[in-house]
Amino acid sequence: MNAPTIEFFWDAASPYSYLAATQIDALAGRVGAAVRWRPFLLGKVFEACGNRMPAAVPAKGKYLFQDLQLWSRFYGVPLRFPKKFPTNSLLAQRVACAAEPGPSGPQLARAVMRAYWADGQDIEDAAILARLCDGLGLPGAGLIEAAGQQPVKDLLRANTEEAVRRGAFGAPSFFVGERMFWGNDRLPLMEAMLAGRLAA
Amino acid sequence: MNAPTIEFFWDAASPYSYLAATQIDALAGRVGAAVRWRPFLLGKVFEACGNRMPAAVPAKGKYLFQDLQLWSRFYGVPLRFPKKFPTNSLLAQRVACAAEPGPSGPQLARAVMRAYWADGQDIEDAAILARLCDGLGLPGAGLIEAAGQQPVKDLLRANTEEAVRRGAFGAPSFFVGERMFWGNDRLPLMEAMLAGRLAA
Repeated sequence: MNAPTIEFFWDAASPYSYLAATQIDALAGRVGAAVRWRPFLLGKVFEACGNRMPAAVPAKGKYLFQDLQLWSRFYGVPLRFPKKFPTNSLLAQRVACAAEPGPSGPQLARAVMRAYWADGQDIEDAAILARLCDGLGLPGAGLIEAAGQQPVKDLLRANTEEAVRRGAFGAPSFFVGERMFWGNDRLPLMEAMLAGRLAA
Repeated sequence: MNAPTIEFFWDAASPYSYLAATQIDALAGRVGAAVRWRPFLLGKVFEACGNRMPAAVPAKGKYLFQDLQLWSRFYGVPLRFPKKFPTNSLLAQRVACAAEPGPSGPQLARAVMRAYWADGQDIEDAAILARLCDGLGLPGAGLIEAAGQQPVKDLLRANTEEAVRRGAFGAPSFFVGERMFWGNDRLPLMEAMLAGRLAA
């Protein structure tokens, strides 16, 4: 039997995408699954399905801040709420699309989310994104340039439209086959299913 | 040191309140905490803070249905999505308030949520609620009558207003002191905090 694949739709603007990104590789390892990292654009998902960002409800926005701190302690991963929030992740997501296929995509995904959610860097800034790429041994200037070209724009758009078509309304969204799991907080359910531990 | 108390704001109309209700006593036992069950009215919480029910976003409503099935398998507890959904839980929540204080409140809370979320009963129906009470050895007719009187109406309203004032915007909402945890899916975080397992 082939190893199952977890498709991981992520957006660097989403803190719960970052949190999930710190856990997904270990989870996949425990259940013998592969991970396919798929950049998408959360803002367009919200537009398409009539959802809105959590902070649109003030009480929810206040709670979100505390909730993220707790998750970072729960996982033991760094998280500093960025001064610039929300951020426009369009360029970052396009650069991530440009870095695909192959292992560069996930590497860059992790680096971009860490840069924004742990290190407070401005991921709207092309120079910062280019330096992140360079730091991973990827051609920063070339990826920034590719990010502005139509095939890469189309890939990001296609990923986003596909996620919406398959039922996504937020981020992160995971798919195992056509079973969707929404949110960092659904990782335990996804793991239980992949491990065959769910009651019939 | 006194045992910590978990305040559990629940509404029988909320499926995640039901799921959390199946887990909270065992969780509290593991960490040596007491649970204070507090009926509130989710619809009024939504009104007060500008939130809306998840099913207001169609894609979210569709996912919610699948998500609930997975949680019921994850926990190994029965859940059948009710034919009549959403339901108006005003009377049920008032009856739960009438059953307080003492152990009757939590008993009735569990029974009402199980009746609606596992057994498909109509919890808007006063006769059904009265029978549920009778089945627990509580005076059904008396509690239904009390539910229509001002002190009980005031208690439900006060619980709801208090939850909103303390930051609630959905259900279930848990408080440990003034630290709020929103949702069945935050039980692991709450448990980790109460067990002293969160990183500094």
